[in-house]
Amino acid sequence: MFMFEKPLGMNDTLPSLYENKKKVRTQMTDVIESWGFQFIETPTLEFYETVGVQSAILDKQLFKLLDQQGQTLVLRPDMTAPIARVAASKLFTGMYPIRLAYLANVYRAQQKEGGRPAEFEQVGIELIGDGTTNADAEAIALMISSLKETGLENFKVAIGHIGFANALFNEVLGNEERTAQLRRFLYEKNYVGYKEHVKGLSLSSIDKERLLSLLSLRGSIEKAEEAKDLVSTAEAKAALEELQQLWATLEAFGVTEYLKLDLNLVSHMSYYSGTLFEVYADNVGFVIGSGGRYDHLFEKFNRAAPATGFAVRIDRLLEALNLTAEQKYECVIFSQERRSEAIQSANELRRSGKRVVMQEISGIKDVDAYSKQFYDVTYFIGSRKEE
Amino acid sequence: MFMFEKPLGMNDTLPSLYENKKKVRTQMTDVIESWGFQFIETPTLEFYETVGVQSAILDKQLFKLLDQQGQTLVLRPDMTAPIARVAASKLFTGMYPIRLAYLANVYRAQQKEGGRPAEFEQVGIELIGDGTTNADAEAIALMISSLKETGLENFKVAIGHIGFANALFNEVLGNEERTAQLRRFLYEKNYVGYKEHVKGLSLSSIDKERLLSLLSLRGSIEKAEEAKDLVSTAEAKAALEELQQLWATLEAFGVTEYLKLDLNLVSHMSYYSGTLFEVYADNVGFVIGSGGRYDHLFEKFNRAAPATGFAVRIDRLLEALNLTAEQKYECVIFSQERRSEAIQSANELRRSGKRVVMQEISGIKDVDAYSKQFYDVTYFIGSRKEE
Repeated sequence: MFMFEKPLGMNDTLPSLYENKKKVRTQMTDVIESWGFQFIETPTLEFYETVGVQSAILDKQLFKLLDQQGQTLVLRPDMTAPIARVAASKLFTGMYPIRLAYLANVYRAQQKEGGRPAEFEQVGIELIGDGTTNADAEAIALMISSLKETGLENFKVAIGHIGFANALFNEVLGNEERTAQLRRFLYEKNYVGYKEHVKGLSLSSIDKERLLSLLSLRGSIEKAEEAKDLVSTAEAKAALEELQQLWATLEAFGVTEYLKLDLNLVSHMSYYSGTLFEVYADNVGFVIGSGGRYDHLFEKFNRAAPATGFAVRIDRLLEALNLTAEQKYECVIFSQERRSEAIQSANELRRSGKRVVMQEISGIKDVDAYSKQFYDVTYFIGSRKEE
Repeated sequence: MFMFEKPLGMNDTLPSLYENKKKVRTQMTDVIESWGFQFIETPTLEFYETVGVQSAILDKQLFKLLDQQGQTLVLRPDMTAPIARVAASKLFTGMYPIRLAYLANVYRAQQKEGGRPAEFEQVGIELIGDGTTNADAEAIALMISSLKETGLENFKVAIGHIGFANALFNEVLGNEERTAQLRRFLYEKNYVGYKEHVKGLSLSSIDKERLLSLLSLRGSIEKAEEAKDLVSTAEAKAALEELQQLWATLEAFGVTEYLKLDLNLVSHMSYYSGTLFEVYADNVGFVIGSGGRYDHLFEKFNRAAPATGFAVRIDRLLEALNLTAEQKYECVIFSQERRSEAIQSANELRRSGKRVVMQEISGIKDVDAYSKQFYDVTYFIGSRKEE
């Protein structure tokens, strides 16, 4: 095996990318902290039986291993289940609602070369123990505020509700299997496939029209009113009213210019139970972040509690931001006898906020090539100072 | 299985510890950056055949798994080998010496309950391509500067040389097996065991005395001069002269008050090839950080280059620092109708640098219990403002 190879989907972060990553991390976490969310960390490895099973990530995407006690472990595939494990424990008794946050790598095994990363970083929050629409609004408004802090422009948060499409499909199709197929088209945002599929179903033309109308239910919040005509159950209408109330709440947060209603939104995360949302930047073709309400996950950890949250992918956000600023470095090159002067000079420059490399000249093979990489070089060599 | 269990040696970091961790991370990385070291990241998973084998960590301490292509992967057990993999690649052609840094979790499988952590965070540097004593001095001086920045007091850096004890043992014992036993006593700092073992060896009383004298070679740099009488080979004497030169260089860096010579120092890291060092804090009984010169690791990655570096364990540093400051949070509690006022008030407080939770009152079960956790609470409820 070639010594420089890395496992499938694994990547190095080199200095210039690291700088940008660090900047974006700091910007996002500063905003999240200022909203009173408390950061925690959980282990990279968790038991398959607890967090692995609850994580809502496909089993084949889990990195599994056996520990020395014979238990199956997983590299955490998301952070929501581990945070739920911690938040449901006795540590937080009597403190609900609680606001937790994380900045962490998650792991998803990949099958193909050149495909998606198998390890990527997420920054996110979980607001636990508050079932109000205000909690959903807070999660969305905080996500928007933190993204704005990074300088991201021209992005939209698409907001939908798991209850609406489900109710429509059940009313029209009444069959879980046929519903699943349509849901898959929506999840893949394959609207052409969805249309073709609906046309081929043995349904009345009115019912076909209802299913096709779903595709037009994207845009302003006014579409929620239109949507009420498509469904008859109280549950579906309640979902739409919840979205209208959410919108009104988000108006108070002053972020509606970033919103878009999307009643086609479905998720592969099986634990979502209410509103859900996805962030897109106009210049890139993928979801930067997502979130939603998951009111049933905590029951699995023996503590019923409503919850909502979001996660933003740092790698995708960086791609959308397309930052190019490089860090500048100065260098102090010195000979042995003038080391003390060099140290003093370097320390002064560092105190003024500069990044300064100190390099003894005998450690350099080619001083011309070496010195080229620096913004500025000061020499302390031989019997007098050259600059 | 109980839903709250974590795998052996795995820990959660709760909010108050996280705050301290973040503070210490920032302090250390700021200093390291100001010295011109560039941070990089490498994947959590590496191939066993490349990084796993080169890592110098015992095989039974590696977390191993099979990927879907049938290759054996490891969770990185240290950062030196992964950094060497990156630094030896074409990306850094013509740029040597290079200064790289990392802040990363490493993984070591544990056998016992209640024992050492199986996942812990290290901050460290690698200075690659510079074989001068100045490079070693820089690594040590930077480690001391960054530790001082965290507020750590009363710590000592013990400095030794892999070449000295080895040379003495070879001269006296001339047998790798007997050498290994003595090295193990030193590594475990079991000086009583060492003495007993030496007394039991079939050696002349002069040779026994030489081996016992080694134990007294700890303290000031003057001990290096004494040590020269114990050995006869040029190699051993060169090791001592290298230490004397290192000391003189560290005087220019102004850090000798933190130094202690320790010619008993040996390492379990098989790649060390010259000077090596360990940091202790007076108030805790373990090594906070360590480092040394490793001039042969890069050959394994097809690029010969001398190198030196250090790694500090964040968990142990935190224990030595014993920080107690807790983060303070304010809270704005509001009712639906007064949401806009509450948002405005919270945003103003946040802009002034405060951490402010916004909580709608209908999301709280017990407002008395809930509000107790905050430093200050402002209420926007009902028809008039109460404070």
